[in-house]
Amino acid sequence: MASTEGSKLWGGRFVGDTDPIMEKFNASIAYDQRMWDADIRGSKAYVKALERAKLVSTDEMEQILHGMDQISDEWSRGVFVIKPGDEDIHTANERRLKELIGAPAGKLHTGRSRNDQVVTDMRLWLRSAISTLTDNALQLITTMVERAAAEIEVLFPGYTHMQRAQPIRWSHWILSHAVALSRDVERLQELKKRVNVLPLGSGAIAGTPFDIDRELLQRAEFLFWASLCLTHLSKMAEDLILYSTKEFSFIKLSDAYSTGSSLMPQKKNADSLELIRSKAGRAFGRCAGFMMTLKSLPSTYNKDLQEDKEAMFDCYDNVQAVLQVTTGVMSTLKINQTVMEAALSPDMLATDLAYYLVRKGVPFREAHGLSGKAVFTAESKNIALNQLTVEDLTGISPLFGSDVSSVWDYRSSVEQYSAPGGTAKSSVAAQVEHLRNWLKKHAQ
Amino acid sequence: MASTEGSKLWGGRFVGDTDPIMEKFNASIAYDQRMWDADIRGSKAYVKALERAKLVSTDEMEQILHGMDQISDEWSRGVFVIKPGDEDIHTANERRLKELIGAPAGKLHTGRSRNDQVVTDMRLWLRSAISTLTDNALQLITTMVERAAAEIEVLFPGYTHMQRAQPIRWSHWILSHAVALSRDVERLQELKKRVNVLPLGSGAIAGTPFDIDRELLQRAEFLFWASLCLTHLSKMAEDLILYSTKEFSFIKLSDAYSTGSSLMPQKKNADSLELIRSKAGRAFGRCAGFMMTLKSLPSTYNKDLQEDKEAMFDCYDNVQAVLQVTTGVMSTLKINQTVMEAALSPDMLATDLAYYLVRKGVPFREAHGLSGKAVFTAESKNIALNQLTVEDLTGISPLFGSDVSSVWDYRSSVEQYSAPGGTAKSSVAAQVEHLRNWLKKHAQ
Amino acid sequence: MASTEGSKLWGGRFVGDTDPIMEKFNASIAYDQRMWDADIRGSKAYVKALERAKLVSTDEMEQILHGMDQISDEWSRGVFVIKPGDEDIHTANERRLKELIGAPAGKLHTGRSRNDQVVTDMRLWLRSAISTLTDNALQLITTMVERAAAEIEVLFPGYTHMQRAQPIRWSHWILSHAVALSRDVERLQELKKRVNVLPLGSGAIAGTPFDIDRELLQRAEFLFWASLCLTHLSKMAEDLILYSTKEFSFIKLSDAYSTGSSLMPQKKNADSLELIRSKAGRAFGRCAGFMMTLKSLPSTYNKDLQEDKEAMFDCYDNVQAVLQVTTGVMSTLKINQTVMEAALSPDMLATDLAYYLVRKGVPFREAHGLSGKAVFTAESKNIALNQLTVEDLTGISPLFGSDVSSVWDYRSSVEQYSAPGGTAKSSVAAQVEHLRNWLKKHAQ
Amino acid sequence: MASTEGSKLWGGRFVGDTDPIMEKFNASIAYDQRMWDADIRGSKAYVKALERAKLVSTDEMEQILHGMDQISDEWSRGVFVIKPGDEDIHTANERRLKELIGAPAGKLHTGRSRNDQVVTDMRLWLRSAISTLTDNALQLITTMVERAAAEIEVLFPGYTHMQRAQPIRWSHWILSHAVALSRDVERLQELKKRVNVLPLGSGAIAGTPFDIDRELLQRAEFLFWASLCLTHLSKMAEDLILYSTKEFSFIKLSDAYSTGSSLMPQKKNADSLELIRSKAGRAFGRCAGFMMTLKSLPSTYNKDLQEDKEAMFDCYDNVQAVLQVTTGVMSTLKINQTVMEAALSPDMLATDLAYYLVRKGVPFREAHGLSGKAVFTAESKNIALNQLTVEDLTGISPLFGSDVSSVWDYRSSVEQYSAPGGTAKSSVAAQVEHLRNWLKKHAQ
Repeated sequence: MASTEGSKLWGGRFVGDTDPIMEKFNASIAYDQRMWDADIRGSKAYVKALERAKLVSTDEMEQILHGMDQISDEWSRGVFVIKPGDEDIHTANERRLKELIGAPAGKLHTGRSRNDQVVTDMRLWLRSAISTLTDNALQLITTMVERAAAEIEVLFPGYTHMQRAQPIRWSHWILSHAVALSRDVERLQELKKRVNVLPLGSGAIAGTPFDIDRELLQRAEFLFWASLCLTHLSKMAEDLILYSTKEFSFIKLSDAYSTGSSLMPQKKNADSLELIRSKAGRAFGRCAGFMMTLKSLPSTYNKDLQEDKEAMFDCYDNVQAVLQVTTGVMSTLKINQTVMEAALSPDMLATDLAYYLVRKGVPFREAHGLSGKAVFTAESKNIALNQLTVEDLTGISPLFGSDVSSVWDYRSSVEQYSAPGGTAKSSVAAQVEHLRNWLKKHAQ
Repeated sequence: MASTEGSKLWGGRFVGDTDPIMEKFNASIAYDQRMWDADIRGSKAYVKALERAKLVSTDEMEQILHGMDQISDEWSRGVFVIKPGDEDIHTANERRLKELIGAPAGKLHTGRSRNDQVVTDMRLWLRSAISTLTDNALQLITTMVERAAAEIEVLFPGYTHMQRAQPIRWSHWILSHAVALSRDVERLQELKKRVNVLPLGSGAIAGTPFDIDRELLQRAEFLFWASLCLTHLSKMAEDLILYSTKEFSFIKLSDAYSTGSSLMPQKKNADSLELIRSKAGRAFGRCAGFMMTLKSLPSTYNKDLQEDKEAMFDCYDNVQAVLQVTTGVMSTLKINQTVMEAALSPDMLATDLAYYLVRKGVPFREAHGLSGKAVFTAESKNIALNQLTVEDLTGISPLFGSDVSSVWDYRSSVEQYSAPGGTAKSSVAAQVEHLRNWLKKHAQ
Repeated sequence: MASTEGSKLWGGRFVGDTDPIMEKFNASIAYDQRMWDADIRGSKAYVKALERAKLVSTDEMEQILHGMDQISDEWSRGVFVIKPGDEDIHTANERRLKELIGAPAGKLHTGRSRNDQVVTDMRLWLRSAISTLTDNALQLITTMVERAAAEIEVLFPGYTHMQRAQPIRWSHWILSHAVALSRDVERLQELKKRVNVLPLGSGAIAGTPFDIDRELLQRAEFLFWASLCLTHLSKMAEDLILYSTKEFSFIKLSDAYSTGSSLMPQKKNADSLELIRSKAGRAFGRCAGFMMTLKSLPSTYNKDLQEDKEAMFDCYDNVQAVLQVTTGVMSTLKINQTVMEAALSPDMLATDLAYYLVRKGVPFREAHGLSGKAVFTAESKNIALNQLTVEDLTGISPLFGSDVSSVWDYRSSVEQYSAPGGTAKSSVAAQVEHLRNWLKKHAQ
Repeated sequence: MASTEGSKLWGGRFVGDTDPIMEKFNASIAYDQRMWDADIRGSKAYVKALERAKLVSTDEMEQILHGMDQISDEWSRGVFVIKPGDEDIHTANERRLKELIGAPAGKLHTGRSRNDQVVTDMRLWLRSAISTLTDNALQLITTMVERAAAEIEVLFPGYTHMQRAQPIRWSHWILSHAVALSRDVERLQELKKRVNVLPLGSGAIAGTPFDIDRELLQRAEFLFWASLCLTHLSKMAEDLILYSTKEFSFIKLSDAYSTGSSLMPQKKNADSLELIRSKAGRAFGRCAGFMMTLKSLPSTYNKDLQEDKEAMFDCYDNVQAVLQVTTGVMSTLKINQTVMEAALSPDMLATDLAYYLVRKGVPFREAHGLSGKAVFTAESKNIALNQLTVEDLTGISPLFGSDVSSVWDYRSSVEQYSAPGGTAKSSVAAQVEHLRNWLKKHAQ
């Protein structure tokens, strides 16, 4: 059969028994070798189960365990040699085991398909990955919380639609992103719980290929988690890029996170933040690619699923780098408090002006309209809102009195919102405490 | 200012003060009116909070509650009239309230921005949506579990790579998908928990616009959940489409879920399954679109976020339809047990042949090779694997004996795997019991 | 057969012969009725082909043509009544034809499957759609080009990395986007050519279902075109949103394209631009969804393909709205020339300072370094770059002389770049001319 | 300034002046070194332009050209040494040039930013990439056309909805995919034309950063082209995977493109086809990622754009591998003509039976119904459609006569469709000729 099988029938490019491009296309050793440790740990656990099931003798088990330790040592010293036939990390380790201990190596794979091995290795790798990313995220949150605590007195404009809305504390901005990150950590912990649940049938000598489908949805979840976390960080980076423009000038990045221009000598670009912003697309692309690969695939194992690994590794590497660089950026940037507070303007208190009337009994919708009139009057006179005289204001509503002057204080405005999550100093301080406790609880 | 503002300066298409295309572009009433109930429930809760905070009187609260009930009644009787200025469900209901009760209506919006309202309405809507989808999924799982229980005796080929692999029970295939669905339900319950956690600051009169970012990531999670659930169902549909081809002929869909061809009189197409298969793409497209919209958006509210609603509604409608149609398909399709069992062939027992040798002490890798030789010998002789004589087999390994005949029994083969999740009748029955209990626990 | 077929076997939700949810799931009349005109035009062309092929008589053809005209009239007057069995626009029109002319109606579908009809209708619809979108894009480009011509004297900062880079003309910014749009139009024209090429076998009575695959890739191309065009406009919108922040204050949108806040009386938000920015995600989501639906679908027609239409219609509607609203925004926004020119600062001429040295023979890399030193010196002294004395400068390089003062002129700086595409007035004017000619050539 | 700049203020992880993670995050040399040749070719062209513009002397130009040739030689011999500061291929080559020729190296970058260089290098790289992929695609098409010519006599079932529809030639199936590929090549040629159009302003010493936006849309187009081409091949692979199942058994892959199972000795899996099928997702993911990165990015250069290169390289590598492996698969697979023809069944001629009545004057819709009745009658009697007696048939329509027997011939059925693109031998042969001519015209 084999003799004529490989021969080309209609002039294709390939002659002979094996197609080197197909071999390369099929091989995963180039990227899955990073799972060497997970593969060895998995095999060591598996041989112990085989021994308990009397499928290998205690002596054989010992030989296999010892061999595996040797292989582990070779990998960690960087001396493991990948050979031509090693198409993936599993065959590489198995091949090496056979070289080291001979015949008993062949017993390690009793009742275990390579797909089972891939699944177990990825599970072990993912557990470590989640643990590392959690650490990185906790470090970033810590940095942000402590910065928020230290700079709690700084006010600056809160924006909606990129237009100045109401005065807030700078710490309020920081904490809003820290809280979002804490939710990302919580989602990651939920995923970790699911990764830790062994599939039905595992531990058994013969598993079921349908578990593979369930495993893959878990990987899809990790890819989506990475997308969500990086999308969130892309939004935070966008804010910071804005704040570091010449026009806003609220913050200045450390040189360690900026670069110059090869053409324009005066430029200092926020490259770090732009890179952070860019990675949401990359991670989501990986998620999109994997979901598309999964779509309408028949049940159980198909070779298409080999696509999962590079996607997982790439997302992991990128989330990890982004978390670390963001930590660096957030711990070294300098704020310009003077500019931040100078950016507050009386029109940002127009809502407070409406509430002034609400407190005197005017329904909010009507008060909103009257405050809007005051804004319009000030604009027409080309003066600031707080420069309107009491006469100007009583012309708009007789309820305005001289006590309206109390409205024009940014710090009082901010202090009004003292409910949990509000902008009052007490609220922000409470949120700092809340997050410090949360961090203690989640420290690994 | 306003007089020249709207005039076209450079020959654009629009003349006058308002651009009707912009109005339509901006309006969301066409699709967000389906949240009318959530909007009314949200406003009723809000006015009670205002009363507790002494921002409306008890009498005003009563008027507002009564007015809201009237509006609710109008919606449910289908007589609510949307008017030209009603750009979204919130303004529509507020406008109507003012018509019904006059001035006090203006107090309902004290300290509440429209964005707050949108967020609350979506939260309430999403809670109902999750509840309905959970019901639909539970009904599908119930159907599948009971079908698996009833047809537990039926064997057919298990496939990997779309090639016949090992004999399994038909119920095993059904349950593998039922378990995957149960995981989808569990994920949805986790999401529900997060939706139920009120954002920091809510309940307060003045919330914080940063909550919006956190809310939006939750919606992104729902869109991804829908994608994941439908991707899983696309895989199940693909299996069933295969099984209903003439070539497989394992199942026959009910006429209620098939359609004919307008050209070819003999055709009966599995349109229902093809539609199920197609929706994973649609849902993921919605998720992709929303994630891309979110990417690098500045913090807090931006009008871009209006994109969330159509995506949410569309995903919900599609998941709901798919779950219901799949329930219909699974409860009415007929299997062809004869064809299914005839599709089993002795070569699918080659792994069992290898285990026969393993039981006699041969390491698995070697046994695998010897069994492979047996397959090759049978192919060369153009006979089935179980037609090899004991002489043929002992030529391959002297360990083969006449007891090898015990290998050639599909039912025994299936019974070997009696661990949890295995293919033995006891294992499958245990899984049925497990899922029945799970269903009881999750019944809402 | 039918009697038991529909009965539920395992307790599913559906009882009876037809499942109303399946019917709704399967039907497309809700959205494909907008192709009524294309469907009628397609059938009229088809019956003429049938007559030439002697498959209908001249008399039958006349009856069919006349009936089709009546149906067309009903649709355009809004009196066509959709009936319960009309699952799509094709069956609706065919059903109505039969009501109007009786038996000969049955001949219209000789050798034509419904899929053929769908393909033809979509092709006709897409041709019209491309034509309309081309018109809309041309109108936008015209507005931009004429605005660029009128405001050619206005300078403002060119940005890279959102940091001030070099002075440019405002018209240069406008034209850069106008040119990008002209490329979008050219791509659309290429697509139009492909849509106009009839598939092999069309015109024949019996086509080939494989054509459907080719058609679908064309639709995917349209969806991607929409994504690309809207992605480009999302970038232009982002620039304009930035320019309309308080901090930049370069432009002010017309009230017709802004909205206020329901909470904050002073707010004026650039909602139109935010909506424009958001639609790139939506269109790309549609493209992603359709590509995922196509992935690994078997050849020829599968019901999954029904997903194409809503995606096409939605993308078309959104591109059209975006092009029109952008035209409105661009024709009515007002620029603040004073602020724009005040945003230019001497450090933006640092590259020119380097070129000053290059002209005196210093290699660019070295000149770049020396100019950078000058920037650093000015920053250290807390003065503007152009306030450095000749002594300061000669301390950096002896080649600096008193003629360095000629560098500090923004308008001269801009005039240096007189090559095609440059910022000199002559270059910008040439580009205006080039685009005016291009517009004449592309007017439909 | 610099002294305190890098110091951590709030306990971040990074201490010192440079953050190694940021450096790695920022560097692209790991992947962009593959553009070394394009970078050198671009610089050689650029220095010639500088000489014409009198910005470098002829002697300096000669030194630079000579130095560049030396660097090229080092790369091609694999001896170029990347040093720690080389963050990308451009700085690496520039650094090396300076080492080799000293001061004049600094003149090469007069008026050229690194971004200009990146753009030029990518353009040159893309031109080569398009040329290589065109070659690969032409080779695949050639293989398919010649196979179609050689196996023109083989009939098998044409499927729609994965259900047997009408008999077709196997060559018809092959050619349908070959034609789709020829369209992919044509699209690639259109893209090549756009890549060859130099941006406005190029050739000038000072370009315009806005060109970058236009360039990037071109890269997005390439990524989409790759997705579209691979999506098409995923569909072809899906067909072939189906055809190679035991149940279909139409084709058998060469061993060179199959792999066995590590668990099941009898398995032979179509791994090559599964890998081909999987790559559509990967490429589209890259496209999705890049589009998301582009979305709402401000004009001109932002560091986010660095994401383009890995996406481009990955798509190129994958399309190239897929085209080559598909060529290998298509040139070595073996068909089983006996099984293919045995899969034809009389019910696939039901459309022909309807046409028989059409030819006797029955309107198609009615004929379709009558043929459907015949199918139902045969099913009820449990016989094949062609086993119905003339009496059976005349019971359905009196127009049936003994000449109906002529309908039951698959080869005649196929020969009916003799229009271009039809299934008749003459049509298929014409299509082979058409493609052979097309190939000659497109040979590079």
